[in-house]
Amino acid sequence: MAVLLGDWGTTRLRTWVIGPDGDVRAFRRFALGVGGLGPGEAAERFEDEVRPAMDAQGMPALLSGMIGSNLGWVSAGYVECPARLGAIARSLTTAAPNVWIVPGLRCAGLAGPDVMRGEETQLLGWLASDPARASGRRLVCHPGTHAKWVRVADGRVERFITAMTGELYALLNDHGTLRFGQRAGDAIENDAEAFDQGLGAAGDGGALSARLFSLRGRLIAGELAPGNSAAYLSGLLIGAEIAALHPIMAASADASVDLVGDAALCAWYGRAFAKRGVASKFADGEAAALAGLKEIWTLAQ
Amino acid sequence: MAVLLGDWGTTRLRTWVIGPDGDVRAFRRFALGVGGLGPGEAAERFEDEVRPAMDAQGMPALLSGMIGSNLGWVSAGYVECPARLGAIARSLTTAAPNVWIVPGLRCAGLAGPDVMRGEETQLLGWLASDPARASGRRLVCHPGTHAKWVRVADGRVERFITAMTGELYALLNDHGTLRFGQRAGDAIENDAEAFDQGLGAAGDGGALSARLFSLRGRLIAGELAPGNSAAYLSGLLIGAEIAALHPIMAASADASVDLVGDAALCAWYGRAFAKRGVASKFADGEAAALAGLKEIWTLAQ
Repeated sequence: MAVLLGDWGTTRLRTWVIGPDGDVRAFRRFALGVGGLGPGEAAERFEDEVRPAMDAQGMPALLSGMIGSNLGWVSAGYVECPARLGAIARSLTTAAPNVWIVPGLRCAGLAGPDVMRGEETQLLGWLASDPARASGRRLVCHPGTHAKWVRVADGRVERFITAMTGELYALLNDHGTLRFGQRAGDAIENDAEAFDQGLGAAGDGGALSARLFSLRGRLIAGELAPGNSAAYLSGLLIGAEIAALHPIMAASADASVDLVGDAALCAWYGRAFAKRGVASKFADGEAAALAGLKEIWTLAQ
Repeated sequence: MAVLLGDWGTTRLRTWVIGPDGDVRAFRRFALGVGGLGPGEAAERFEDEVRPAMDAQGMPALLSGMIGSNLGWVSAGYVECPARLGAIARSLTTAAPNVWIVPGLRCAGLAGPDVMRGEETQLLGWLASDPARASGRRLVCHPGTHAKWVRVADGRVERFITAMTGELYALLNDHGTLRFGQRAGDAIENDAEAFDQGLGAAGDGGALSARLFSLRGRLIAGELAPGNSAAYLSGLLIGAEIAALHPIMAASADASVDLVGDAALCAWYGRAFAKRGVASKFADGEAAALAGLKEIWTLAQ
């Protein structure tokens, strides 16, 4: 029987209809993020808009991401880490008849409880996509609004830490007083040299609120062009994140990292890792989400 | 002869009319911040609104703060540090006939050039207000949107570092996804316990973008009430600033700090310093600005 799979995050919903043999019959992105849903609105929008558009009436549906938060359809709870990822397939929450939601993960973080919702599905898909990944120690980084660093050992999530790097970038670009010449989201078109300057300004990642102000100082001193402000800021924030978290999360100073996420953003992270002598590999986050949802659906049968 | 003095910052203008004997004849705050001025608008607003309201037509005027930046009336330049504060009185810029603007200070900061504009005047006033302050080593902290940490030795500014603590607080409260229960600016009414929780979460000040996310984790885990989010965030950001910058700027681990600024905000800083075993003294920032403008006006005659 076909199933409707959905990766329903804060800013968008990605859906796939999968046939019984695992073949993708339909794929679509909706600009229907959880962040824009009114209270109680998720069920109606899903039944009235998403199912018809996917020609998926009556199909069982499996959803992951922020739709399982208190801002979404129904709170789908969390699986406590350390945990094997397969455990999430045994802890689905029924949102409505024929609609299940994947739980998030929770662990003791750096300065309090930490949570993820959506990345656990990508992580499971990433693991399932290559049997070699299921053994040994791995450090996985999911760049994004709330970047996740995850330590995996023999297919088990030991711990993870969230860094609000992408959110700080967007807040400073969109609403900050540094008056950048560029806008959030266009880092890929920016100057690699300014990004590297930002990486250098990140230092050991400490005193971030002071290091950020170097952007204004450099603009005033003519050491940075206003049009390169966003790239500098991106380099500084990503550099500070890596400088602070790689030493905490990696087994050794040059331990490699698996990047799972958006290709353009992962490329910037890859550049930042390379400057520290850390090798990184890229895997597409959307493909990982699909693989994860398929794996969870299979495990849950 | 009477003089019109103005502390013209990003969000407001404070003006005083001072008589020949230094007596304050008039005082007024205007909601006329540099941040809201259109290009070239400063002169007109000053002549048409400020002077008449202060009954100060024809008086010489001395202004300090962001009005001397490229966003203000005219760029008033910077005095390079290390510098004696008296040097700023010899580097005034003429904005218009009978209107002078105080320069800012510039130095090599933590991750690039650093600048201040307005605090140098407060600092000069703070020094001039007590002869004992003119000798020995002092560490002065001006809390605010862009907090300044200044090392002064025998009345000379050795170096300073800016931390964007107040701006990050406002951005995260007003536009962030952490969905706080409270708004920017009301930290004084918040729970001291939540502030202390935030101080604890600040740790050594490193990995700030990760520590910030602990707010969401604690809300989800029920370890923090939504109404106390702003106080927690304030404690975390102030704690991280102090943990990162006091060791860099202070002569010893328990070296005391002079706080110059808003009374309510300085009280929170004082609490945070006390938790680290660091003594602090408070001086009112507005009074320091007035004392500084008077001192510069006297020195410049």
